[in-house]
Amino acid sequence: MTETTTSEQFSVVSTTRRGAIARWRQVLIPTTRDTPADATTASHTLLVRAGFIRQVGAGVYNYLPLAHRSIAKITAIIREEMDRAGAAEMFMPVLTPVELFAASKRDQDYGDLLFRVEDRHGRVSALGPTHEELITDLLKNCISSYKQLPLTLYQIQTKFRDEFRPRSALLRGREFLMKDAYSFHTAIEGEGGLKQTYDVIYDAYTRIFQRLGLDFSAVEAESGPIGGSASHEFMVNADSGEDTILVDRAAGYAANVEKCEIGERSHDLTGAPTDDLEKVHTPNLPGIDGVAEHLGVSAADMLKCVVFEPKDDAAREAIGHDWVLAVVRGDHEANEGKVRDLAGGAVVLGDEKRARAAGFAIGYVSPCTAESVSGTLLLIDPDAAQPGPASSGWVTGADEPDHHVKHFTWSRELGDTARGNARVGDIRNAVAGDPSPRSDGTLDTQRGIEVGHIFKLGTKYSAAMGLVAMDKDQKREPVIMGCYGLGVSRTLAACVEMSHDDSGIVWTPAIAPYHVEIVLMKPDDAEQAEACDRIAGRLADAGVDVLIDDRPERPGVKFNDADLIGLPVRLTIGGRSLADGNVEFKRRSDEGKGEPVALDGVVDAVLAALADKG
Amino acid sequence: MTETTTSEQFSVVSTTRRGAIARWRQVLIPTTRDTPADATTASHTLLVRAGFIRQVGAGVYNYLPLAHRSIAKITAIIREEMDRAGAAEMFMPVLTPVELFAASKRDQDYGDLLFRVEDRHGRVSALGPTHEELITDLLKNCISSYKQLPLTLYQIQTKFRDEFRPRSALLRGREFLMKDAYSFHTAIEGEGGLKQTYDVIYDAYTRIFQRLGLDFSAVEAESGPIGGSASHEFMVNADSGEDTILVDRAAGYAANVEKCEIGERSHDLTGAPTDDLEKVHTPNLPGIDGVAEHLGVSAADMLKCVVFEPKDDAAREAIGHDWVLAVVRGDHEANEGKVRDLAGGAVVLGDEKRARAAGFAIGYVSPCTAESVSGTLLLIDPDAAQPGPASSGWVTGADEPDHHVKHFTWSRELGDTARGNARVGDIRNAVAGDPSPRSDGTLDTQRGIEVGHIFKLGTKYSAAMGLVAMDKDQKREPVIMGCYGLGVSRTLAACVEMSHDDSGIVWTPAIAPYHVEIVLMKPDDAEQAEACDRIAGRLADAGVDVLIDDRPERPGVKFNDADLIGLPVRLTIGGRSLADGNVEFKRRSDEGKGEPVALDGVVDAVLAALADKG
Repeated sequence: MTETTTSEQFSVVSTTRRGAIARWRQVLIPTTRDTPADATTASHTLLVRAGFIRQVGAGVYNYLPLAHRSIAKITAIIREEMDRAGAAEMFMPVLTPVELFAASKRDQDYGDLLFRVEDRHGRVSALGPTHEELITDLLKNCISSYKQLPLTLYQIQTKFRDEFRPRSALLRGREFLMKDAYSFHTAIEGEGGLKQTYDVIYDAYTRIFQRLGLDFSAVEAESGPIGGSASHEFMVNADSGEDTILVDRAAGYAANVEKCEIGERSHDLTGAPTDDLEKVHTPNLPGIDGVAEHLGVSAADMLKCVVFEPKDDAAREAIGHDWVLAVVRGDHEANEGKVRDLAGGAVVLGDEKRARAAGFAIGYVSPCTAESVSGTLLLIDPDAAQPGPASSGWVTGADEPDHHVKHFTWSRELGDTARGNARVGDIRNAVAGDPSPRSDGTLDTQRGIEVGHIFKLGTKYSAAMGLVAMDKDQKREPVIMGCYGLGVSRTLAACVEMSHDDSGIVWTPAIAPYHVEIVLMKPDDAEQAEACDRIAGRLADAGVDVLIDDRPERPGVKFNDADLIGLPVRLTIGGRSLADGNVEFKRRSDEGKGEPVALDGVVDAVLAALADKG
Repeated sequence: MTETTTSEQFSVVSTTRRGAIARWRQVLIPTTRDTPADATTASHTLLVRAGFIRQVGAGVYNYLPLAHRSIAKITAIIREEMDRAGAAEMFMPVLTPVELFAASKRDQDYGDLLFRVEDRHGRVSALGPTHEELITDLLKNCISSYKQLPLTLYQIQTKFRDEFRPRSALLRGREFLMKDAYSFHTAIEGEGGLKQTYDVIYDAYTRIFQRLGLDFSAVEAESGPIGGSASHEFMVNADSGEDTILVDRAAGYAANVEKCEIGERSHDLTGAPTDDLEKVHTPNLPGIDGVAEHLGVSAADMLKCVVFEPKDDAAREAIGHDWVLAVVRGDHEANEGKVRDLAGGAVVLGDEKRARAAGFAIGYVSPCTAESVSGTLLLIDPDAAQPGPASSGWVTGADEPDHHVKHFTWSRELGDTARGNARVGDIRNAVAGDPSPRSDGTLDTQRGIEVGHIFKLGTKYSAAMGLVAMDKDQKREPVIMGCYGLGVSRTLAACVEMSHDDSGIVWTPAIAPYHVEIVLMKPDDAEQAEACDRIAGRLADAGVDVLIDDRPERPGVKFNDADLIGLPVRLTIGGRSLADGNVEFKRRSDEGKGEPVALDGVVDAVLAALADKG
């Protein structure tokens, strides 16, 4: 993890602006006991039950007034930090000519994720999933010289992705709110270079998520389909997250599964055979697990041989081979990025038809193909470069359909040359229990919700689309870019995932739709109503946002709803306490029924409670 | 016009928040001398030339940082006034299930204007053009009782309409920013009724456009395809507007062409014939003008007979006739709403096939069909209910194809009964020169840009979609609705249309992207740079937003760009004046080159200038 800036104290109530006062009946807050049938996460259930959101279609939601207010507080924090980072806000359209995505080949990368709309003249636009292409195209006509750079632009805008299976309401929607930023440079290093801006934005993200009160990790990550050379994901630590990350907490290391390095592991290709090589018939068995079960061994007793090939001619030349055979233990997953690094050039999964023609019995490949198929580079993960289990030896493919072998032994089955040319190194995804790359400890896994992702893009888009700038030597070079995404609506959901209890949401003051709910026991009682207005007015003067529950409902209904929508402080104004000059004061995060506070002391008590949690 | 609230003084600089300081090189401001080839309006040309917007596709634009800042200032004003009006902000999605538009039949009303997108599962969504259907559907599941009403909700969001010919950049785009609000009631009259909220929003709009510094008219208007019973358009008075409105300025009356009433006019159906009725052959003549030219008369010498029929059975019963024949002077246009009012029930243009079968020689109809076609109600506009011109008499159709008659005379051609049953009244669109309905004067025309439109919808959507609420008598009744649109991006363009000169935009301080531009003559000069930073800091402390032109460009380039982007105040920091302890101060709206102001007096001079114009 890059070192983060020191967390500062942020005031959650404005000292300069008057707070808002709203009445329940003026705001649409349709609380309900009904849980959506498809809800599997707390944020989905609670945001619907508390009247924050309502579904319109698959992965498409209405943001009702309470949600809108929390979103507005999140975006205000984002804007403050992005502006502080020197970025300028702008606003790009949703309708993006589909030709721009063809230029970057992302129309293929995204595939069906891209919503396409045809207009009355037959022109096709994509509904923007992100805006790398659009802003690269824009800058082509605005930038010509290094003197105009660096430049960082951002927007907060609705994005569209036609997810096959949207889920968990705001955690994975098809229409969602995102902050996306793009930076432009003439150099990677130094003043004004990509790395400097990347670090500044990294710090801005850290501050944003700190101010939102989130427990998060900044995770090293591969870049995925967006391209480029290095990236970080910002993950909110939550069991309901759909991403798994690996952490060495003691060492402050966190990475996603694809990127996570693994610490030093020994290997041994010299072990003696455990028994004679034995060919067994394994027809119609789906995958490693099926074969293992049939043979009475575990997946960890097997060698998995994955056939890669160089991505293109340049990679073929760099790698010096036509095929790359990656061997990992049967319970592990080969990692394309690590295979690339160990092979020395970009790889893709081998084309099945060509691989068969070359001699790979796909599904039944053994490490022996490193010798039998010419031009094959053999890579072995250390956990696979071992003598093998004593009982069965290594089980692996027999290089013919529907057959495997038992008691495969590296020293017996492979010739000295093949073994000598094999490269042993980390080529698999990390798993819990693996040695840490940063300490003597081991890696642990945790679940996370990805709320931010920042990328050093390099020249992927500028080179493809012709965004060049004159450098100091009067040479026209592709502009170097970074891009920086932050899921706004997903962050709202992540806040709820992090902070709720059995009764409802527990908002952190920074993004609570209002800070205080005043429960008015008898809205028709003139004295209570007057006290309520006076308290609300004094709170608003102090910058506190107030929601007054003025509904003619029973107290139990109001208290339950107050817990459900989860504002940080509840004040109850009732006849008995008012006669004593008090109101009942209760923090949402406290158990029990609250305590009396004198009318004079209410504002101070509220401010203290908000500052305490802020 | 409804009476408007008194205009208050609004401070255009925040007294509580620090102003922004930005440097030209950190903000993307791609000024250019190139005028877009298709630009026909000042706002299109200047917003592009000043680097505020860039086109992405037909009617689709990027909002660059300067435009974004002005938009943000406009939306902040809108939010303040909508919140003050008691409305709660929310946010609805773009993707709207197309079935909702089928329920309200707006899929047909909008036709090709509706963008449609099919997802990977074959479900079709419309890209929301406005959100009446979505919010009506939402409230069906949130509202059940009058106790929950009234309620007013609004959003500021991107809208989509597939205009056949988008034009003038932000004046008529296909993707544009809009504030749309919806109100819900159980009554039209009284406390909490539609009329009360309608008036409150009317006042809010008046305040919004006043604060934006716009010269505008609130215009009585028919409701158009959105439905309902009464509406007002807010029109910015600008020659480049595509709408025509009629005004009696002295009386404070304004209305659009369809809605405008006409003052008292006399009529006379008793005049004597000018000559014998004469049938003439008029084949292949396109329309009134062709016939008039062929016969050597003017269109004003002709009677135009338009055949309407009742809209449905209920209207047929109310009108008591099967056909409605509307007769207007040849140079006038029949007005469907006025025909409806005079006939006593809703009408549509007569179905041509049925009308021919009934005996109307469409294209050659004369007023005599009021007698010859049974069940016909005759309506005559006063200007048509006259003796006719002496030379040719009235020219009108001969009730047979390809023939007209001259010297048509009401008293001769129509029997006493038919004349007695005819209703004479205002059934046409108003034109310039018509008597005012509000004074002894006449109506005048002016061009306008429609920036807002508010509607008393009634139960159009609630009845069609089943949004009902229990009233005080425990009866379930359709909820009464109002809707209130305001074009945000179009308002930005209207501000430029209103306020520019040959050199560029002249922003009103309330929505200028920054209030002050500091032109730094020598950015490399330490003394100048230091003075600039100090002045900018003091201005920001006073709530003023500052843009510093720190580019290494010639002074002429900077001054031209300063005029082009049009910030209210320009301060020039140069060596000579600085040596005298001065900076050069110039208002954008002033001619000439500015005057020296002492460094100490800069903040006061700037605040005075902004307040003056504010």
